Amino acid sequence: MNRYEHLAQVLGERIEQGLYPAGQRLPSVRTLSTEHGVSVSTVQQAYRSLEDRYLVEARPKSGYFVSTRKHLAALPAVCRTPQRPVDISQWDLVMGQITSRVIPGMVALGGGTPDLTLTSLRPLNRAMARVAQRTDNSMLYYDIIEGSKELRDQIARLMIDSGSHIDAENLVITTGCHEALSIAIRSVCEVGDIVAVDSPSFHGAMQTLKGFGMKALEIPTDPITGISIEALELALEQWPIKAIQLTPTCNNPLGYNMPDDRKKALLRLAQCYDIAIIEDDVYGDLAYQYPRPATIYSFDDDGRVLLCSSFSKTVAPGLRVGWIAPGRYRDRAIHMKYISTGNTATQPQLAMVDFIEEGHYQAHLRRVRNQYQQNLCVMTNWVMQYFPQGVRVSRPQGGFLLWIELDEKIDTQRLNRILEPEKIQIAVGSIFSASGKYRNCMRINYARLDENIDQQAIKRVGERVHQLMENG
Amino acid sequence: MNRYEHLAQVLGERIEQGLYPAGQRLPSVRTLSTEHGVSVSTVQQAYRSLEDRYLVEARPKSGYFVSTRKHLAALPAVCRTPQRPVDISQWDLVMGQITSRVIPGMVALGGGTPDLTLTSLRPLNRAMARVAQRTDNSMLYYDIIEGSKELRDQIARLMIDSGSHIDAENLVITTGCHEALSIAIRSVCEVGDIVAVDSPSFHGAMQTLKGFGMKALEIPTDPITGISIEALELALEQWPIKAIQLTPTCNNPLGYNMPDDRKKALLRLAQCYDIAIIEDDVYGDLAYQYPRPATIYSFDDDGRVLLCSSFSKTVAPGLRVGWIAPGRYRDRAIHMKYISTGNTATQPQLAMVDFIEEGHYQAHLRRVRNQYQQNLCVMTNWVMQYFPQGVRVSRPQGGFLLWIELDEKIDTQRLNRILEPEKIQIAVGSIFSASGKYRNCMRINYARLDENIDQQAIKRVGERVHQLMENG
Ligand SMILES: Cc1ncc(COP(=O)(O)O)c(C=O)c1O
Ligand SMILES: Cc1ncc(COP(=O)(O)O)c(C=O)c1O
Repeated sequence: MNRYEHLAQVLGERIEQGLYPAGQRLPSVRTLSTEHGVSVSTVQQAYRSLEDRYLVEARPKSGYFVSTRKHLAALPAVCRTPQRPVDISQWDLVMGQITSRVIPGMVALGGGTPDLTLTSLRPLNRAMARVAQRTDNSMLYYDIIEGSKELRDQIARLMIDSGSHIDAENLVITTGCHEALSIAIRSVCEVGDIVAVDSPSFHGAMQTLKGFGMKALEIPTDPITGISIEALELALEQWPIKAIQLTPTCNNPLGYNMPDDRKKALLRLAQCYDIAIIEDDVYGDLAYQYPRPATIYSFDDDGRVLLCSSFSKTVAPGLRVGWIAPGRYRDRAIHMKYISTGNTATQPQLAMVDFIEEGHYQAHLRRVRNQYQQNLCVMTNWVMQYFPQGVRVSRPQGGFLLWIELDEKIDTQRLNRILEPEKIQIAVGSIFSASGKYRNCMRINYARLDENIDQQAIKRVGERVHQLMENG
Repeated sequence: MNRYEHLAQVLGERIEQGLYPAGQRLPSVRTLSTEHGVSVSTVQQAYRSLEDRYLVEARPKSGYFVSTRKHLAALPAVCRTPQRPVDISQWDLVMGQITSRVIPGMVALGGGTPDLTLTSLRPLNRAMARVAQRTDNSMLYYDIIEGSKELRDQIARLMIDSGSHIDAENLVITTGCHEALSIAIRSVCEVGDIVAVDSPSFHGAMQTLKGFGMKALEIPTDPITGISIEALELALEQWPIKAIQLTPTCNNPLGYNMPDDRKKALLRLAQCYDIAIIEDDVYGDLAYQYPRPATIYSFDDDGRVLLCSSFSKTVAPGLRVGWIAPGRYRDRAIHMKYISTGNTATQPQLAMVDFIEEGHYQAHLRRVRNQYQQNLCVMTNWVMQYFPQGVRVSRPQGGFLLWIELDEKIDTQRLNRILEPEKIQIAVGSIFSASGKYRNCMRINYARLDENIDQQAIKRVGERVHQLMENG
């Protein structure tokens, strides 16, 4: 744990223990700096991280105060997972989920699409059109199997922000993060192998395990600090686990960032048991903190981490431009890339080179990170306003997805069916578990909020939940 | 066999038996029409198919003559394959092959790229640019998993030419034919299964079998009529084969079109042994005959054929737009699509809708089919001029790939190494065999011929082969 994290922990504990009551002014930055012998910027960072957790509020020109939110929503509970490898089910539910996102007129609260209506994306259209008209017709040709060298150079540069100094040679462009995950899993596992996953976990990665005949072992996961290192260690002792697959930064669906020390502890564990880590970083650049958190990949010094990502969440999913940094598994990854799609579409790659090179990627990121963080407050307030008391919600540190845990007797599949005629759709919790857990949970998207449509929709969902509570 | 095929066979046999000597004028269309009681157009079709086989030549205003080519090159021999399932090797060679196609200045005779410099492709650039600037920004969004409905409608329409009446619902868009093949194989086979393949066979499909842990059983294949039905039947009796994977129309690398009756016989065999057929039709629309040959898929009435194709050879590979018609395996195919890439890039799909809708696809096909057929003559003549006597060459009925069989003592891997400093590259024969056969064979591309560069290159290759023959 570094200095600001330590300080944040000390202050957070004092607040939670009631030493500083709600609404009270907190010690000034300068005072704390002197008291703890740390720099002013360390104190500021500590306060910002407490803000992220809604424990403190900054008031312009007057300093930091203990949050006055009447009900700081309780966090989702850590789930008791099956503690043994399971065959993954839920494909029918996942199909329902991905099919309904494109029904016209549907308020798709359950989708995973970022806001694609912002003017900061406009330069991308121009880049796409320019590439289409290049006289060398480069977009028509097969590229090398690794994908555009220029794009890999740009991605390598971007990855410095997450702490990695990587060579373009060690990257392979993929058709979205889906293909990256699929390649990663096939590069380190065989049919029948066991893979440990965070829980709840991204359904796409679990369906990939299912499709290739592997088993998932769900590890209990804390909504603030991520996968339990302790539970993982127990599992590693008990089972011949081949790899750990997880999304440690801006997690889908819980939204947490695993602290650096836990990322490092996870890596040490993987080294100790000599297994691979498949790290999904697809939301990583959408972390609300600046600079963004480091990846596990950036701490890795023996090539056992396979980093998977894409521009689907940060820019646009229709481009299908992703990548994998396969570490020591490069040869197998290249073979898997060849048999999976041969090459990635050329034109969106070249357009992304333009978009990044001219600074539009960073500008767009600043714009959306800001919007998503603001929307998170709005959405959390709506949920607390319209949902029954006792609802538990996640506290995302990045991205645009909120996880909601309802009373145990609520079945969100049933809720979804009730909402269907009203053209509202949520993501049901059970697709995020290999063993069908989280039936009383749901995930909603707050990337783009229309005060009318979305507020009404959340209100509707809240009402339906109330009814389900009452009618049993 | 239909009427024109029957007539062509009768005439072909007479020519080959010397009843009509070289250079002699053949009976007029009208005479044959009366004599055989068939229509004038049937006779014309028969003559055209004999022209395709270089047995007759049309002379403007004077009718048809027996071909005067001094040496009609002998056909490649039918290979004696191992007659047992093998683990596929040759990945290193395939890697070498796909890497060298993009070395600047290389005359990549071994590549599989069509001619991308024609003006008939220009409307595609405009379509790409138009899609990029649509105000609804449709290119940025995730599409449904099956891919663009409009594109599937267009493909269904195009498939009528190959005899299929298919619903857009039964198509899934893929990232090139590679992904279609990968999905098909994973939809019907498990690890350890045996798949029968034509031999020589497309290395990409074989590497996919390898990557997923299946075994290939190579079936002897005739350079004119395709995979041996008889040998296949024997193999089916002996081994628990799960599927047959082949390219029956405009085969890569041999160029043949399997006659309809053999396609039907193959299907009957698959029905009889209740196995699936994976039909690669990626070059099918490039058949020199009009209308193009029917697919096996078009004869299938119980959903056991999985048709795989793309626009990579007919339009441009960089688009990565392919499709699969998975028959009765639709559910598994959709799952495999989901875990392989999630979605296909949206923009190239929408651009292809435009390109086809406005008639540019058919116009471009007419243009390239014509060019490829002409280039075939030129290339065959160069090979026969510059290569040692006794060289055997294929007689492609479509596409742009020529297969060349050299003297048994020539090793084309060695030849390729010798050619490397001269910046010439060929595709070595052994990548087309699961068991490393065809070491004395090579494949070259005649899509786009530059009288200078390509003729010089072929001359160089011929000289090197001569030297290898002499020096042993
Ligand atoms: C955690 C996570 N990984 C990967 C993906 C897939 O990304 P892509 O659309 O780039 O394939 C998603 C999107 O749903 C996701 O949430
Ligand atoms: C027979 C055959 N099938 C499939 C492919 C791959 O096509 P695509 O580039 O659409 O993945 C090729 C191209 O090399 C091929 O020759």
